[in-house]
Amino acid sequence: MSAKGLIEDLVAANHILSQEGVVDGFGHVSVRHEKDPERFLLSRSLAPAGVRASDIMEYGMDGEPLNARGRKSYLERYIHSEIYRVRPDVVAIVHSHSPALIPFSVTGTTLRPIYHMSGFLGSTTPVFEIRDEGGPATDMLIRDRKLGAALAKSVGRAAFALMRGHGSVAVGNTLKQVVYRAIYAEVNARLQAEAMRLGTVTYLNEAEAAGASLANDAGVDRPWDLWRSKVTASVRTMTRGQNRGRLRK
Amino acid sequence: MSAKGLIEDLVAANHILSQEGVVDGFGHVSVRHEKDPERFLLSRSLAPAGVRASDIMEYGMDGEPLNARGRKSYLERYIHSEIYRVRPDVVAIVHSHSPALIPFSVTGTTLRPIYHMSGFLGSTTPVFEIRDEGGPATDMLIRDRKLGAALAKSVGRAAFALMRGHGSVAVGNTLKQVVYRAIYAEVNARLQAEAMRLGTVTYLNEAEAAGASLANDAGVDRPWDLWRSKVTASVRTMTRGQNRGRLRK
Amino acid sequence: MSAKGLIEDLVAANHILSQEGVVDGFGHVSVRHEKDPERFLLSRSLAPAGVRASDIMEYGMDGEPLNARGRKSYLERYIHSEIYRVRPDVVAIVHSHSPALIPFSVTGTTLRPIYHMSGFLGSTTPVFEIRDEGGPATDMLIRDRKLGAALAKSVGRAAFALMRGHGSVAVGNTLKQVVYRAIYAEVNARLQAEAMRLGTVTYLNEAEAAGASLANDAGVDRPWDLWRSKVTASVRTMTRGQNRGRLRK
Amino acid sequence: MSAKGLIEDLVAANHILSQEGVVDGFGHVSVRHEKDPERFLLSRSLAPAGVRASDIMEYGMDGEPLNARGRKSYLERYIHSEIYRVRPDVVAIVHSHSPALIPFSVTGTTLRPIYHMSGFLGSTTPVFEIRDEGGPATDMLIRDRKLGAALAKSVGRAAFALMRGHGSVAVGNTLKQVVYRAIYAEVNARLQAEAMRLGTVTYLNEAEAAGASLANDAGVDRPWDLWRSKVTASVRTMTRGQNRGRLRK
Repeated sequence: MSAKGLIEDLVAANHILSQEGVVDGFGHVSVRHEKDPERFLLSRSLAPAGVRASDIMEYGMDGEPLNARGRKSYLERYIHSEIYRVRPDVVAIVHSHSPALIPFSVTGTTLRPIYHMSGFLGSTTPVFEIRDEGGPATDMLIRDRKLGAALAKSVGRAAFALMRGHGSVAVGNTLKQVVYRAIYAEVNARLQAEAMRLGTVTYLNEAEAAGASLANDAGVDRPWDLWRSKVTASVRTMTRGQNRGRLRK
Repeated sequence: MSAKGLIEDLVAANHILSQEGVVDGFGHVSVRHEKDPERFLLSRSLAPAGVRASDIMEYGMDGEPLNARGRKSYLERYIHSEIYRVRPDVVAIVHSHSPALIPFSVTGTTLRPIYHMSGFLGSTTPVFEIRDEGGPATDMLIRDRKLGAALAKSVGRAAFALMRGHGSVAVGNTLKQVVYRAIYAEVNARLQAEAMRLGTVTYLNEAEAAGASLANDAGVDRPWDLWRSKVTASVRTMTRGQNRGRLRK
Repeated sequence: MSAKGLIEDLVAANHILSQEGVVDGFGHVSVRHEKDPERFLLSRSLAPAGVRASDIMEYGMDGEPLNARGRKSYLERYIHSEIYRVRPDVVAIVHSHSPALIPFSVTGTTLRPIYHMSGFLGSTTPVFEIRDEGGPATDMLIRDRKLGAALAKSVGRAAFALMRGHGSVAVGNTLKQVVYRAIYAEVNARLQAEAMRLGTVTYLNEAEAAGASLANDAGVDRPWDLWRSKVTASVRTMTRGQNRGRLRK
Repeated sequence: MSAKGLIEDLVAANHILSQEGVVDGFGHVSVRHEKDPERFLLSRSLAPAGVRASDIMEYGMDGEPLNARGRKSYLERYIHSEIYRVRPDVVAIVHSHSPALIPFSVTGTTLRPIYHMSGFLGSTTPVFEIRDEGGPATDMLIRDRKLGAALAKSVGRAAFALMRGHGSVAVGNTLKQVVYRAIYAEVNARLQAEAMRLGTVTYLNEAEAAGASLANDAGVDRPWDLWRSKVTASVRTMTRGQNRGRLRK
């Protein structure tokens, strides 16, 4: 795939995550550069629904932009850079505040795979507590490399992690996979909360989770194609409106 | 009804189930061939929202395609074939992961008819546990005839069954009826969960469930016409976008 | 207002109730004839979203159509006729299965006004149990005058009543008022269920409920105008699709 | 910013709050006049989705219109005037009945910031009880200056307050900020209720709430631009429909 194709997919990922309710005015998705693993692509600071190819910037492993040309960066770009640094297997990352996951981030309840669609959650989900590294008086944001590194450590080898009182991080080895994970982690949270109110839950066991995850990876084109087709029409209107924000930068 | 009419209705059923939130990128609906009861019609592997007449394939009672011509099949087509084999009364089948039903599949809570719209649920709803046939390490999918047969046995004479950690199956004697059942089983799950939190629930008794089911069968054209009118406009855009997936196959 | 204006408003009420999720393929709304209080207007048997002026029929106090001309009637038209018979103050009626109200109909939980928007609920909400009149083996439907009369008796002087395992009835002295009531009764149910999970609820007392109801009646044009403007665009597409159902009758 | 720009933003705020589900047929948003702090701008009595520049009126600190020209005022304009009187720091106010907040208004449950997006909630949220000032038999509405003053006193120095059995008030130092607060207070209520069902909740502490609130204020253009772009298309249709209401006034 050419760099142009990768950028197109990253733009589509932004629109899909917005359309599916994973991100709103906030949240972001990045992808590692296909030729240089020490770089990654991420939009300038903009609501994902309005991102276009010309908004995509390149970043280095220190989380700083390589071709800013006056474009403003997301404050929390260190979420991406620090995870890419310690996880060579990771090719794409989504950070969001998607709603059903927030309650799991602030209670002792472990997010676990309730059905095969969320097998990637494995047997447990880490929760990052910013107070451990940043103390009791942060503004909750991953606004420097140190906090990014602490978050990356908390994520560990997982495919998905929660951030207390803030949101979540999904990682994957392709853009399609990470978009899938961000969307179905949110669905899983909604269904798990509901199930816990009905009675004792039988979760996928480790073998089932691993098997289901593998099977879903093989079929990840199908939902991607659907999501991509859904955003085509609606995004056209949105990006026109976003010109206002574009001109203000 | 001509075969062409049946295919049109099957395409419409795909779009309706997508529009009403029963299926997303996954899930499928089939119908028994009108002339040969040993065959059934099912789309190639595609998100239901994008299915067109040219995607519909014929399958035999072994779950294998009769006219694939390079088109890829759904992995879980054995759900359909094995139920058609043992249920001559069944003319149409929906398999989905519709969200409100998942919590009922993983807890000991019996799905029961909370109102007349879901009388088809009768007095209880079977739950298929894949571990019983497939052991503790499957990927949760009905990927062969043996698992399909076990599922069909679990469904028994019911109109609706749950699959633990996976989803559900609705069967019916017409496409319109099975679409109705798939949609209102989902609604019933949502309302039953809510009602159980409010207090002790008075469900329809067996006579009421049977009577209501009969009455609804007589009026199944009305919601079908509504659903069909709702998808007309939105599907046009979707299928254009789906050309991307179409070309990739 | 001319009869033509009344019919237009009744068509709009059908579309609004559909747009706002109170009715789906099922449910209906009627209005008493402006010149002859012994007649009322109600659509032929059709999903409310597709109703047009030419679908509106006249009914007598026995629930039978006066100008059917081959058009099929709703089975449950006796809900309307029997309430109009005993409630001369009632000018418009909505029957629906709107979702949040169903759980209240099947548990012992009393629906009560949680905020000023639903003051019309007063201090309690009657629940009609069809078994009391129809015995333990009905199909849950109000399919004759006897069951309609029993329902009307259960409604009594109330503005709103639940029907166990079935749905609800809103009555009002104008179409706008009854549409308002049907919509906000549904909202109230959703919010009351949620509030009951948070703690002990302070409901409106009788004086507050009465006062708020009076205030809302005075402002009922405002939401009606909003709802009517929202349906204008979407209904156009729907009614075209409904031609299919129209031709089949 | 010119007065024209302020009016445009106020119109946009009306449409955004409607689009995001904070207001429906009811609720209103005002902004203090940019040149004369003793005046504020507020639409005539109209559903927010239909508000245009020509509907915006000026009010004095007594809550009475200065340029009515026959246009009808919102009954509850005293919510705005009395808060502006005692809070010189406040530049914009939203009053709504947004659904997730109602349950918090009628139970003893304190609304608290569950994540960084709602840091503006601080450590607690006041609840206005109209019975304290108005006695046990009001119609729940802030229909005079005395009730407005009592509400303003209850709000105190807070950014957000609940009104028992009625709704809520958000205040801010810009239109963008108050719209942000009204939207995310609603989200917070939904997530907090959900979290409380999962287990003991770790809320933002005071320092985190203050820090997050500051950070969000700096980024308030981003969601505003997104929301504004979303309303552009849909509002066009709505306002056409609203002409009906417009002509009736």
